[in-house]
Amino acid sequence: MIKAGIIGATGYAGGELVRLLMGHREAEIVWYGSRSYIDKKYADVYRNMFEIVEDVCRDDNLEKLAGEADVIFTATPQGFCASLMSEEILSQTKVIDLSADYRIKDVAVYEKWYGMEHKSPQFIKEAVYGLCEINREQIRGARLLANPGCYPTCSTLSVYPAVKEGLIDTATLIIDAKSGTSGAGRGAKVDNLFCEVNENIKAYGVANHRHTPEIEEQLGYAAGHPVTLNFTPHLVPMNRGILITAYASLKKDVTYADVKALYQKYYEKEKFVRVLDEGVCPQTRWVEGSNYVDVNVVVDARTNRLIMMGAMDNLVKGAAGQAVQNMNLMFGLPESMGLELAPVFP
Amino acid sequence: MIKAGIIGATGYAGGELVRLLMGHREAEIVWYGSRSYIDKKYADVYRNMFEIVEDVCRDDNLEKLAGEADVIFTATPQGFCASLMSEEILSQTKVIDLSADYRIKDVAVYEKWYGMEHKSPQFIKEAVYGLCEINREQIRGARLLANPGCYPTCSTLSVYPAVKEGLIDTATLIIDAKSGTSGAGRGAKVDNLFCEVNENIKAYGVANHRHTPEIEEQLGYAAGHPVTLNFTPHLVPMNRGILITAYASLKKDVTYADVKALYQKYYEKEKFVRVLDEGVCPQTRWVEGSNYVDVNVVVDARTNRLIMMGAMDNLVKGAAGQAVQNMNLMFGLPESMGLELAPVFP
Amino acid sequence: MIKAGIIGATGYAGGELVRLLMGHREAEIVWYGSRSYIDKKYADVYRNMFEIVEDVCRDDNLEKLAGEADVIFTATPQGFCASLMSEEILSQTKVIDLSADYRIKDVAVYEKWYGMEHKSPQFIKEAVYGLCEINREQIRGARLLANPGCYPTCSTLSVYPAVKEGLIDTATLIIDAKSGTSGAGRGAKVDNLFCEVNENIKAYGVANHRHTPEIEEQLGYAAGHPVTLNFTPHLVPMNRGILITAYASLKKDVTYADVKALYQKYYEKEKFVRVLDEGVCPQTRWVEGSNYVDVNVVVDARTNRLIMMGAMDNLVKGAAGQAVQNMNLMFGLPESMGLELAPVFP
Amino acid sequence: MIKAGIIGATGYAGGELVRLLMGHREAEIVWYGSRSYIDKKYADVYRNMFEIVEDVCRDDNLEKLAGEADVIFTATPQGFCASLMSEEILSQTKVIDLSADYRIKDVAVYEKWYGMEHKSPQFIKEAVYGLCEINREQIRGARLLANPGCYPTCSTLSVYPAVKEGLIDTATLIIDAKSGTSGAGRGAKVDNLFCEVNENIKAYGVANHRHTPEIEEQLGYAAGHPVTLNFTPHLVPMNRGILITAYASLKKDVTYADVKALYQKYYEKEKFVRVLDEGVCPQTRWVEGSNYVDVNVVVDARTNRLIMMGAMDNLVKGAAGQAVQNMNLMFGLPESMGLELAPVFP
Repeated sequence: MIKAGIIGATGYAGGELVRLLMGHREAEIVWYGSRSYIDKKYADVYRNMFEIVEDVCRDDNLEKLAGEADVIFTATPQGFCASLMSEEILSQTKVIDLSADYRIKDVAVYEKWYGMEHKSPQFIKEAVYGLCEINREQIRGARLLANPGCYPTCSTLSVYPAVKEGLIDTATLIIDAKSGTSGAGRGAKVDNLFCEVNENIKAYGVANHRHTPEIEEQLGYAAGHPVTLNFTPHLVPMNRGILITAYASLKKDVTYADVKALYQKYYEKEKFVRVLDEGVCPQTRWVEGSNYVDVNVVVDARTNRLIMMGAMDNLVKGAAGQAVQNMNLMFGLPESMGLELAPVFP
Repeated sequence: MIKAGIIGATGYAGGELVRLLMGHREAEIVWYGSRSYIDKKYADVYRNMFEIVEDVCRDDNLEKLAGEADVIFTATPQGFCASLMSEEILSQTKVIDLSADYRIKDVAVYEKWYGMEHKSPQFIKEAVYGLCEINREQIRGARLLANPGCYPTCSTLSVYPAVKEGLIDTATLIIDAKSGTSGAGRGAKVDNLFCEVNENIKAYGVANHRHTPEIEEQLGYAAGHPVTLNFTPHLVPMNRGILITAYASLKKDVTYADVKALYQKYYEKEKFVRVLDEGVCPQTRWVEGSNYVDVNVVVDARTNRLIMMGAMDNLVKGAAGQAVQNMNLMFGLPESMGLELAPVFP
Repeated sequence: MIKAGIIGATGYAGGELVRLLMGHREAEIVWYGSRSYIDKKYADVYRNMFEIVEDVCRDDNLEKLAGEADVIFTATPQGFCASLMSEEILSQTKVIDLSADYRIKDVAVYEKWYGMEHKSPQFIKEAVYGLCEINREQIRGARLLANPGCYPTCSTLSVYPAVKEGLIDTATLIIDAKSGTSGAGRGAKVDNLFCEVNENIKAYGVANHRHTPEIEEQLGYAAGHPVTLNFTPHLVPMNRGILITAYASLKKDVTYADVKALYQKYYEKEKFVRVLDEGVCPQTRWVEGSNYVDVNVVVDARTNRLIMMGAMDNLVKGAAGQAVQNMNLMFGLPESMGLELAPVFP
Repeated sequence: MIKAGIIGATGYAGGELVRLLMGHREAEIVWYGSRSYIDKKYADVYRNMFEIVEDVCRDDNLEKLAGEADVIFTATPQGFCASLMSEEILSQTKVIDLSADYRIKDVAVYEKWYGMEHKSPQFIKEAVYGLCEINREQIRGARLLANPGCYPTCSTLSVYPAVKEGLIDTATLIIDAKSGTSGAGRGAKVDNLFCEVNENIKAYGVANHRHTPEIEEQLGYAAGHPVTLNFTPHLVPMNRGILITAYASLKKDVTYADVKALYQKYYEKEKFVRVLDEGVCPQTRWVEGSNYVDVNVVVDARTNRLIMMGAMDNLVKGAAGQAVQNMNLMFGLPESMGLELAPVFP
């Protein structure tokens, strides 16, 4: 039985981790960390867990927790995990960091986009970027895992085969993303009030969203050269879900069948990436509550562009689900253990 | 392995049955019946099941299915199940009917409220009303099970202990109910279009909703005398969830603690009924996707009334989840098998 | 041209006042008071007013404003208006208070339900309760107007004729109310975040909501004796709208036509109260953005109860619209000036 | 007083026309055409109009109506208006067609994208494309007006100055659009049910949406050469609103201030186009219920692209509001008469 500790257990991603780990037969949660609710019953904060979780919330003492847990999930604000990381911690436990602290290999890029000093750059090199479908082998041996961002997960998986195979001109790549509101977190802000989000759609972080360099780095590895792209997220009046619509110019004359074959080459054996049938557009409702990413493409001969689409639950494959998938890999368990959840509809 | 057939597999309740049975380790679905989509891949109708369900939809041949399945779920319009039921079917298989056909013991009451002739009244007496927490023992031996309506499940469980113990004057009982839109089904009607339901709330079926006599009958058994009450459902702009707010005059001078003790007497050992802490109102979000019913009460000394509240997922405990719970009982399996799902939030 | 000042112009009710007064040809806004946004452009807070309102937000100096405005609207938290009211202010200007400070005549009742001391009880007697359809004549001469609460407006108008005419037993009266989320205000609270409200319904303030004594007082005047009732509000995932479902036992043997005639006696000439056709239930979508209240009843012969329903936009007839209607009366203008807005659908 | 007839008065655009014309002091509606509801009271279909509109719905007899009305609005399915148009009609009345029948000058393009034969191509040349801000002068003299599509209105106005001034490379232009569900019409389809749209976002009509050639044609006029672009609409779970996010490579080295000045050159005097302040992204909630289009841009130096954004109410500026604006121009009235509505928030 894997002993798991969660730092940040009362955010939306932390709450989803709790839900998923409650259904995982080889893991048990030993620490519900939540700075805001110390000593409060977890089920008094997340009442869905009434009579399911009996524990109280504890502080975010990473060092103490390292001695009690086999794996620590940090679902915390940027900079938190990096500020506390140490060799001592990593020598005692594995760490799966859901924040961005170890995702970007170039510390200068991190510091520029996140506007903060990185407090433990010595661990960046060691950290493994946990996009399971692409980095599976390195993940198995990781001590420190950088769990990918929600937008980067969906963006990268939607575009990866086309970039990897040199099908598209990466200089023309534009990613237009749409996200449900749980991605904005559980902080009490006027902008995230029901009446402000409901009956509304808006772009935000235009040309400067922090997930941009993460996507560029991952696609750069696939392309074999640096990639610079536009990434524009939008806030959608729904709880969960991310939809990616990506555009790029084709470098080859291809049919839908050609591109489909190429996507299947990468994803046919991947349980959690579903390449849809021709003509079917991904929709977030078809993946809600599950660890699936649904992808598909349209070849537009008129404009010579490939339109790549992906849909995903931002809290599952975009956060907690992928973290569990990474945990499974790191502990030698079947990759989909605890994640065999059919999407909930409607 | 229980072989299960579903008639009406492409309605919302049918779809939820498919989701739940996919996660049930002692059951497998052998028949996806759907008159509207015969020969179409099930996953082309419910794309959440892409790469999970490979079968095609079949017709609604109850007789043929009876020979192939150990249990048949009928998630069909009123009158359908009754029109096809026969001793031959029941001698070969068990039937769990999610429609109202066998819920009401007095056929005249059924025919009056439903406005149709009952085609197989000879089976009404045999049919067991499947409110598990109340009729558990009879359910175990049932061949023909009448799965309770969504409103009656939540209403009855919210009010049952107070009625059973003679705490309230049933002549004063008023049940004001609120439901998400999946309760209205998947038929293409203008009234259920997004733009008609969104940003709106309305009452409907005022003083004549068909679930009224079902609730009255069940509470009548608890009271030991006939009960007549007001039941008013409202349509809420959300997908899932039912909330019950019930009012009745107290016959005794009681405190919250008294009533709580009385509710615990009935529900303490019930996994799926959670009596909340004092002062906590049930909310549908805390039970979404799960088989739980959350209940609580407020004693209003000013008006000498008891206010009873209950929240539930209409598609789970209100339909498919309770059907699976009944199946488990009927086949001697642990009652919660396949239903150990923590509520999904947000 | 009436010079109007608004204290609390950046709350939802204040914002709606701005919208309505922009379309009022005999009024102009001279003061946009907002403690939270002093010196900020109003249109930077409410961007719908970009290029429409050029002013900046000012503080909440009631005394100074009294010298500049013909009428002051206070859309402020409970206690604020009462704490600053003075004869000097009222001798210079009229005040329409959208808070509860002067709604309740018995100061002990106010202080008990609101849990605060009333700072200017000497003005309570003078203040006129501004439910236009009922208190029209007194409103015309008022200096200090207590604008009714949202729930009390819809509740009272839905029930008034039945109480006034002695049709129902007020001892049996139960009001089950449902409100959109704008009623909860624009404060940054976790409970009002999109992901907490969306896909959810809950009761709140059960047996202790502050609007209860206000409704009881108004209905008490209609009945000619004290009224004690149950009032239970619910939070609905929509921006605007209040729906009332009220229940009471009939004291007379009546038909729908009888009750309809009685309601028409009071409302036939009222522009803003629409008595719907038989069988039509009020829905919030049909009044959104307008000053209408739609009401109707069902006579339930089975239970001998009258079910009374009302739908209204909580920000218009429930707050800003009624405030403008009161202003019109107080200044001798046509009562519907600036309020001739057809409901917006969808 | 202008006598206006509406064909298709019970669709969402038709309903919005009714709302707007009820508030227009120089127009009155003489004909509520609705094939589906002939002889039914209009207010029984759109109950927001109860006690406001007393008329019954009539058939869609364009010839008869031509003799009774000064202007006819056709808010009807594609092909309907073209199939009935005649010189006789146009010699008696003005026609404002809200369908696509006369928007596209090249009949072959129309027939290819719409998949139907054009029944009156002889009127295409005469028809004026009613994008008021761009074609104002031609509109004044029009007999037959092609009211622009919702997406084309928002897309064109968001991008027009950049194209007209040669700022961007039109070969790189990509328009990613998001729309509320009222754009899908009031037809009873499973895909538009509440439970299918709510908690979901999807792209549709990818690479083949019918508004594509309309946008291309209009931007082609601005560019002075043919324009081919990608246009991808998405369905958003909200009632109203369109948001455009457009991307194109810059041909010049410019700052935000440069581009802003250029947009102001075209829009400074336009009442209904608001160029927002630097850094402010358009949001649909800030224009809801009004005739405004909010636009803004971001210059992305990293990628050398211009990101152009626009927000609009699809039923107002995207349909009925623009139709009224066109009517005003065609009848020599002040252009904004009846459209001086501040956006409704929240």
